Amino acid sequence: MKMEKFDGYSYVEGGVCAARGFTANGLNCGINPDKNKNDLGMVFSEAACHAAAVYTQNKVKGAPILVTKEHLKKSNGIARAVIVNSKNANTCNADGIEVAEKVCELAAKELGIGVEEVIVASTGVIGEPLPVEPFEMGMHPLAEGLSREGNIEAVRAIMTTDTVEKEVAVEFNLGGKTCRLGGMAKGSGMIHPNMATTLNFVTTDVAISSNMVQKALSETVKVTYNCLSVDGDTSTNDMVSVMANGLAGNAEITEENAEYEVFRQALCIVMQNMTKMLAADGEGASKFLECACSGAKDIDTAITVAKSVIGSSLLKCAMFGEDANWGRILCAIGYADADFDIMKVNVDLVSAAGTVPVCRNGAGVEFSEEFAAKVLAESEIYINVDLQDGGCQAKAWGCDLTYDYVKINGDYRS
Amino acid sequence: MKMEKFDGYSYVEGGVCAARGFTANGLNCGINPDKNKNDLGMVFSEAACHAAAVYTQNKVKGAPILVTKEHLKKSNGIARAVIVNSKNANTCNADGIEVAEKVCELAAKELGIGVEEVIVASTGVIGEPLPVEPFEMGMHPLAEGLSREGNIEAVRAIMTTDTVEKEVAVEFNLGGKTCRLGGMAKGSGMIHPNMATTLNFVTTDVAISSNMVQKALSETVKVTYNCLSVDGDTSTNDMVSVMANGLAGNAEITEENAEYEVFRQALCIVMQNMTKMLAADGEGASKFLECACSGAKDIDTAITVAKSVIGSSLLKCAMFGEDANWGRILCAIGYADADFDIMKVNVDLVSAAGTVPVCRNGAGVEFSEEFAAKVLAESEIYINVDLQDGGCQAKAWGCDLTYDYVKINGDYRS
Repeated sequence: MKMEKFDGYSYVEGGVCAARGFTANGLNCGINPDKNKNDLGMVFSEAACHAAAVYTQNKVKGAPILVTKEHLKKSNGIARAVIVNSKNANTCNADGIEVAEKVCELAAKELGIGVEEVIVASTGVIGEPLPVEPFEMGMHPLAEGLSREGNIEAVRAIMTTDTVEKEVAVEFNLGGKTCRLGGMAKGSGMIHPNMATTLNFVTTDVAISSNMVQKALSETVKVTYNCLSVDGDTSTNDMVSVMANGLAGNAEITEENAEYEVFRQALCIVMQNMTKMLAADGEGASKFLECACSGAKDIDTAITVAKSVIGSSLLKCAMFGEDANWGRILCAIGYADADFDIMKVNVDLVSAAGTVPVCRNGAGVEFSEEFAAKVLAESEIYINVDLQDGGCQAKAWGCDLTYDYVKINGDYRS
Repeated sequence: MKMEKFDGYSYVEGGVCAARGFTANGLNCGINPDKNKNDLGMVFSEAACHAAAVYTQNKVKGAPILVTKEHLKKSNGIARAVIVNSKNANTCNADGIEVAEKVCELAAKELGIGVEEVIVASTGVIGEPLPVEPFEMGMHPLAEGLSREGNIEAVRAIMTTDTVEKEVAVEFNLGGKTCRLGGMAKGSGMIHPNMATTLNFVTTDVAISSNMVQKALSETVKVTYNCLSVDGDTSTNDMVSVMANGLAGNAEITEENAEYEVFRQALCIVMQNMTKMLAADGEGASKFLECACSGAKDIDTAITVAKSVIGSSLLKCAMFGEDANWGRILCAIGYADADFDIMKVNVDLVSAAGTVPVCRNGAGVEFSEEFAAKVLAESEIYINVDLQDGGCQAKAWGCDLTYDYVKINGDYRS
């Protein structure tokens, strides 16, 4: 997938290690019996960071979520490290909190930092006890191996059914200082991402207060990460965290000024790219889908409509079958919980092969099935919906529903 | 699937023709190029009926929905016939209303009744013009062939991806009079039935006012038909209608008395059975799923939780894979938009092979994977959720998510 260009920002290598002062590592500590797969990852900042996080809205919350929340509260939003494991979500276990705390203690001891400066996360199967022994064995070599090139090992440690590493970083300028912001992500079950676990860790050397990091994160999540989801619900272990260590040396951002906007856009660029990577690598996906809703009277209407289209299982199947069944799209627009006039809606199907207008003012228009088939044969499909009702727009992302999705999720635990 | 027994009600044959005075028929009139498949169905009452209907909530409404609404308004809730076609939904067509009206005129003329006494429905592909010619050709033989045994031909006329005919009828007593109530249904896309078309037509010889029929229908739909759906949204053409011709000779029901309750329960029995049949025959389904939520503080909480579990694609895949991944269930309970304490939730997996308690007070309990595999190998799986928070309960129904679902919906239009 080609990454969209933005003036003033350039893409750089390095993921969570792109920004100054960050190191990372990953290895197999024995939670995953497959020794070739990393199951434990770490990100570390040589300087204290202002940190912020957003968590799942699910009533069932993984123990690591509760522990991270408590830590950031105790430390007043200061963090130094992320410790994360895959293969076991440490959720719905009687001793979950205790285990998550122990993992943080082990990490803090190795790194010589306070336990409340550790952000902890887990992803994998729910309801299976998570033993501490693998962490006891793995923590020392993990910390010892931290390096500026460790981002790839770290991102591999959070992969579950992911088929590709997902990381993005950008470089930009703030008051004459060169800054970087990068992140890594994992995600699965892109049909209803609200039911899968998605983790995002972002690092930056920008100097910015915890409050402003939190504000930028909350604003950005709404139009990126949450636009993968059908209804805003999330899984038990979802988490996005941002750590800002200030080593770029810019004047600290403490209010909504021009510098804040530059930072917020950097975060948005990185998170939007990771969101699109998550969509493209959805379980069993053969096609990336993007729905852009324009002409909405407000941003919430645009988001609701775009998410409704992307969330339709019937549309996802039709895209897999390369079937220009635009009735599925109009149906999904029609049951979106938003206020607009369905008789004004236009829909186009777009890909590298061209554009097929399929609906004008709520009614079907004739099109060549042959050409539509050519357009839908591409691997990236764009569904453009125009409500003709205002100037706001939003996008949502997903993938098609395939045989492989069913196969992957029919026997997830083994 | 075994039908549940209810005191005072016995199941009888005949579907929409079970009640006195109703005849039906179905045939191929050429909308479906496969001449072996019926595409046009009719139900007729020799006496005027008090009728009621509920319709899709989708902003995109099929033309037949709009025409039926208008007819029942004009006729003050009096109807005599249903005319229904499959293979083409007559939705999003510029001349849709005109065509639907013309179909009603043709039916009314053949039957010698008023055009406003005709209920019209269509199911099939959206956005393809529906020609009138097949109806002109088919209406005469259709009406001429109406018979007391025509219920099977009629139900076959509304099948799309359905693999079995769905009809149910019961006999019961009202004030010394033997009464009957029966229905036929079609449905597809049981993953998100809100996005498919589901039609239900119910007939009865009970004497009851239009207002009370409407009340009973609205109450019953909430706990049957709508519990197949994920979020209460519906497709463009969904409709449930009830026609009561009064030929049983009971004193007309005009208020919420004991007789109303007997009628309401008859309607509930028939609609609940049809709902379960729709779930079991979900597209590509290999297993029927029922989630019963008990111990809820109110009925709406129970409905919300049960529907959340049944609506989870990840759970559906796990059931297809016969994987006792109860974390998926707890996750779906957790994101249900209702108020309860997740730390009190108990979950059992139940089938003809036995019961596996998998969760107590929000935490996993040990169970034999071998026994769980035996339980999940059955074709009807019951997921029992106890919120331990009150005395209310509700059920929701669905099916597993299989390779065949993807196949069927990948190329629906051909």
